Amino acid sequence: MMDKINQAINSIKPLDERAMAEARMRQDNLTKPQGSMGQLEFLSIQVAGIKGDARPRIIHKVIFTLAGDHGVTRKGVSAYPSEVTPQMVYNFLRGGAAINVLARQVGARVIVADLGVASVLERHPQLKDKKVALGTDNMAEGPAMSREEAIRSIEAGMELVEEELTKGMDILGTGDMGIGNTTPSSAITSALTGVDVAAVTGKGAGLDEEGWKRKVKVIQKALALNQPDPKDAIDVLSKVGGFEIGGIVGLILAGARYRIPVVIDGFISGAAALVATSLSPQVRPYLISSHQSAEPGHKRILEHLGLIPLLNLNMRLGEGTGAALGIFLIEASLKILNEMATFAEAGVSEKI
Amino acid sequence: MMDKINQAINSIKPLDERAMAEARMRQDNLTKPQGSMGQLEFLSIQVAGIKGDARPRIIHKVIFTLAGDHGVTRKGVSAYPSEVTPQMVYNFLRGGAAINVLARQVGARVIVADLGVASVLERHPQLKDKKVALGTDNMAEGPAMSREEAIRSIEAGMELVEEELTKGMDILGTGDMGIGNTTPSSAITSALTGVDVAAVTGKGAGLDEEGWKRKVKVIQKALALNQPDPKDAIDVLSKVGGFEIGGIVGLILAGARYRIPVVIDGFISGAAALVATSLSPQVRPYLISSHQSAEPGHKRILEHLGLIPLLNLNMRLGEGTGAALGIFLIEASLKILNEMATFAEAGVSEKI
Repeated sequence: MMDKINQAINSIKPLDERAMAEARMRQDNLTKPQGSMGQLEFLSIQVAGIKGDARPRIIHKVIFTLAGDHGVTRKGVSAYPSEVTPQMVYNFLRGGAAINVLARQVGARVIVADLGVASVLERHPQLKDKKVALGTDNMAEGPAMSREEAIRSIEAGMELVEEELTKGMDILGTGDMGIGNTTPSSAITSALTGVDVAAVTGKGAGLDEEGWKRKVKVIQKALALNQPDPKDAIDVLSKVGGFEIGGIVGLILAGARYRIPVVIDGFISGAAALVATSLSPQVRPYLISSHQSAEPGHKRILEHLGLIPLLNLNMRLGEGTGAALGIFLIEASLKILNEMATFAEAGVSEKI
Repeated sequence: MMDKINQAINSIKPLDERAMAEARMRQDNLTKPQGSMGQLEFLSIQVAGIKGDARPRIIHKVIFTLAGDHGVTRKGVSAYPSEVTPQMVYNFLRGGAAINVLARQVGARVIVADLGVASVLERHPQLKDKKVALGTDNMAEGPAMSREEAIRSIEAGMELVEEELTKGMDILGTGDMGIGNTTPSSAITSALTGVDVAAVTGKGAGLDEEGWKRKVKVIQKALALNQPDPKDAIDVLSKVGGFEIGGIVGLILAGARYRIPVVIDGFISGAAALVATSLSPQVRPYLISSHQSAEPGHKRILEHLGLIPLLNLNMRLGEGTGAALGIFLIEASLKILNEMATFAEAGVSEKI
């Protein structure tokens, strides 16, 4: 049943050390003090290793914005009603959301997919239908989904990448939309990192103090009731996850399999990254953290994965907005690598 | 003698509160949870206040890269020889430096100016000749420049902005090139913030531990010998500053005067921002810090000025490279403000 997922996992290779060494050497010969572009230098070398190319270029950029609904919203864990999920999907399709604006700025195409919105969406040529079910069940009363559905959501994410490969994909960004989805993300984070629920739970889209306390209790109850097994990431995803989160796990696995740099957005994408790296630690070198979200759990995820975020702007929107900004910085790092003159070319004296 | 500078200072107005309130209101009506774009929302509102326009747009972007040499390099305070300053100026003019690459990426034009390179540069149609002198004197043996020269360098920076205004300038970024210029920047920072020299001195382009100790001693000696008056920023600039630093002070004053957002680069530009805000605190709201440099003194400058950097990527190159990346993020913040749909336009439900 896990055939497609296992096949992907078994196909993931380590980064290309030779391409990385060549990129490092070139960085050191460019007309700047060695290391003076800081994190951007490491980024360019990582991408060289991912793509197996010492001078990689990024032309085709894709951001995936995956939507799903959450039965747990019936417990009052979000400041917004569930109807906002489909409304925002239509907003994405019309180009009026933040992710559309930022994707246009960086020249990325946005792929919008329904992984499990709780209503039947109008068909649209730009909307990918990968619906696993009409929203998850309420994880405070039982598992959010079956194990089969969890696997199906991951496979759906992998399919999304595969369907877009032929159109060109030099980099991919992850994104999410789902009212209530910081709740399963906190539950996953607590389950897979062992950190206390209260420490990884934030105010999401705008809860007040009372709402936050309610949310923490709901997550604690869901974990106590479902007992997700931290050694079995699929079990965690199925019991306290979400369909769009599973979809992002699939994006990540497929990205690593096809040697595409995977730019992780914020907290929800981070929870998916926890699941993906738990399924296969080989995934980790393919990940680039675009930003650190204002959600407190995200910092714990980044620490757990050993990822250093490129940005820390107190953003907490999701959709792939952080990933879009991250893609710009990754492009900058590669332009530095590819377009700068070397000391020899420019006739500039080297270090004394 | 300070006529031109005083005139600029007296022309600087507070930000436009009404434009800011309108921009705030629009941000709150866009299809995202209020505040969810974090620092980018504040940025867009600041730029609205600077430009006196609730929906400002940025078309013309200019990065100024100002070059100068430093007599103090004779004391072994840099890992690179002074001849690199003119070599890098030619590299800028040929388009092979990091600032050229990043400016192309963000669509900014780079204005290269000689404020005080220690050699006579070949004429070039793209090189602005604002040379005050052939490098500063050695500040470890006397003042780096005369008071007249300090004023002249500031005026030169103001002229650079004025000469470019007619070609369009919706935003300006500051940048520097000058072998040895972290040494005067540390001296200025210590003099104007009162922080100990060792705490604001770093390894510049790549000193070893011995070199760093020597650099600290040289700066301490220069401050003890010249006794710059912290209440007189021109005195500080003249005794322990540099021509390109004075030029950046001029860029900042002119930017504030003409209501142009001023995107501050790293440590050297930060030292200039200290001088400019010391001359006129009215300048402060016009400043946007693009990034926090790896140079330890820069963090102290940002704290002193109450500026929150947009990026913290461990960069330490100067040239305006951080400013270029910052300009991208500022543009992103304005595109969000201008291009996103409101809740009403998109038919999205608001908070419960």
